[in-house]
Amino acid sequence: MTTIALDAMGGDHAPRAEVEGAILAARELGVRILLVGVPNAIERELSRHPRRGLPLEIVPAAEIITMTDSPSQAFRRKKESSAHVAARLVRDGKADALVSAGNTGAVMTVARFVLGTLPSVDRPALAAAFPNMKEKVSIILDVGANVDSKPEQIEQFAIMGDIYYRAIWGVKRPRVALLSIGEEEMKGNELTREAAARLKQTGLNFVGNVEGRDVFRGNVDVIVCDGFIGNVALKISEGVVEHLGGMLKRAIKSSLASQVGYVLSKRAFGEFRKRTDSSEYGGAPLLGVRGITIIGHGRSNGIAVKNAVRVAAELCRSRVNEKIEQELSAVAARG
Amino acid sequence: MTTIALDAMGGDHAPRAEVEGAILAARELGVRILLVGVPNAIERELSRHPRRGLPLEIVPAAEIITMTDSPSQAFRRKKESSAHVAARLVRDGKADALVSAGNTGAVMTVARFVLGTLPSVDRPALAAAFPNMKEKVSIILDVGANVDSKPEQIEQFAIMGDIYYRAIWGVKRPRVALLSIGEEEMKGNELTREAAARLKQTGLNFVGNVEGRDVFRGNVDVIVCDGFIGNVALKISEGVVEHLGGMLKRAIKSSLASQVGYVLSKRAFGEFRKRTDSSEYGGAPLLGVRGITIIGHGRSNGIAVKNAVRVAAELCRSRVNEKIEQELSAVAARG
Repeated sequence: MTTIALDAMGGDHAPRAEVEGAILAARELGVRILLVGVPNAIERELSRHPRRGLPLEIVPAAEIITMTDSPSQAFRRKKESSAHVAARLVRDGKADALVSAGNTGAVMTVARFVLGTLPSVDRPALAAAFPNMKEKVSIILDVGANVDSKPEQIEQFAIMGDIYYRAIWGVKRPRVALLSIGEEEMKGNELTREAAARLKQTGLNFVGNVEGRDVFRGNVDVIVCDGFIGNVALKISEGVVEHLGGMLKRAIKSSLASQVGYVLSKRAFGEFRKRTDSSEYGGAPLLGVRGITIIGHGRSNGIAVKNAVRVAAELCRSRVNEKIEQELSAVAARG
Repeated sequence: MTTIALDAMGGDHAPRAEVEGAILAARELGVRILLVGVPNAIERELSRHPRRGLPLEIVPAAEIITMTDSPSQAFRRKKESSAHVAARLVRDGKADALVSAGNTGAVMTVARFVLGTLPSVDRPALAAAFPNMKEKVSIILDVGANVDSKPEQIEQFAIMGDIYYRAIWGVKRPRVALLSIGEEEMKGNELTREAAARLKQTGLNFVGNVEGRDVFRGNVDVIVCDGFIGNVALKISEGVVEHLGGMLKRAIKSSLASQVGYVLSKRAFGEFRKRTDSSEYGGAPLLGVRGITIIGHGRSNGIAVKNAVRVAAELCRSRVNEKIEQELSAVAARG
């Protein structure tokens, strides 16, 4: 049975959302969950649910990393945090994967240094899912594990992203693209020009450069870029959704007719919100570390946590890390 | 009287939108408009409107740059294009500003090489307006005139953006920020760390680093970044708006109740669309060239063209280029 080390103290709604997610996951997905954190707090939440016979265990951790802790300080000064303890469970073979909805930077740092990087991987990369107009998902990586990436690192991101996409979305030959500022190869910057030349040499289904708008058009599956660019793209998207949502709400409140209208179209809005909520897609994997690591959004609710556990379990079952190591070492051998 | 050279053949709806915009501008703004393009096509559109006594003239141009022309080829091979002729009118002192809703890359190239760069400016920068939650506007520059910018170029963008913001939005000390991937100064990349150090030394109201989400929160006025980043940010925002709009439409069509609801809340949606439509904000200036240049969105309608003319005229009246040259040469003198 796949065992997940779940950081029960990460996230804005911890440990409530984590406990809810763990129960859903244990019941629906047939995985064993180690709830890592402050035992009293976890037990209080567990007591609210019937859970007889479910494979749930508590593993104590004394410290908690907050959302405002700096990643490097959290890593160095809170060695007994729930994230550290959960990562050590994976490192020591007591769990197959780490799932956390905590401070993204801190969890990345903990995973990177407690678990280490796969031998052939230069830099791990964080892959975020973006729902698109074709009602499918495109992923972007890296969205913030690195800055100032080199072309050969972008190539590694593409290979890791391709393996991840195949594992989770079951597409045989995902369309891989490079995020740039125009489709013509000459248009990007120094990095994209060199990276494009490399990507053409891989065996990937590389379809060329795409622009920011293509992220949502569903014409490509895996989009690679430097982590600074990817993080700006992610945060800008979140910003637009937040802004439009707020504006729509204010506009609707402005008249009685539109309020009545809102009530009538409520189901449409619900569907809309659901499809723009990235937590439906189960968190972002940090690809390239020794041990599956999934980082959920801080706002994760129980369903988002369950989905993150589901993705973690699928990545374990499809032996994603073995495949990454295999393909990247083959690339390295070819020179 | 301020004279605007309007590229009548740029834009998806040219010359109809350009002629409509020219008539609105001539009537409402007290500016003189030179409509540059194919005389027959312009006259046909002009004949649809009463325009007795309005200061409108046609200046013939034989060639048209299309949206799919590559910027460098359009610049080199279509020397008699409406964009070229309009730029030469500004260069030769026959017009005060160039306005075009044509192929952004091509118009930038034409403006840059026909008009030239101001003596103290290293690289011109394109500044785009983003409506924010405080019902104000934040601008981002550069959004695509440059890639692989140097820290000293980012500093110049900040100074030019500050002058532009003061001229158009009448704010005395605009809050200037650097687009990065976290608020802490150490978090960005090599470029942002060096640029932040420089920005602190300027006399600007530099408030530090902001993330992508802050673009829409209205806590800063002028956001600077490398043009590759800015262009990705712009295209991603457009992509999200397009995606959400389409999703909302499909969701609403899915049931009769939501269709009735939609009719009732139509005014709210109209307001929403209007406020997310960047053409309300009058196009993007290419700051740093010798001669005011405004580039509108290809989709510009007549009102958007009028707004672009309005911004061009305001930048002329407030002597933005003199101020840019003055401040940048002072920076250069200080070393």
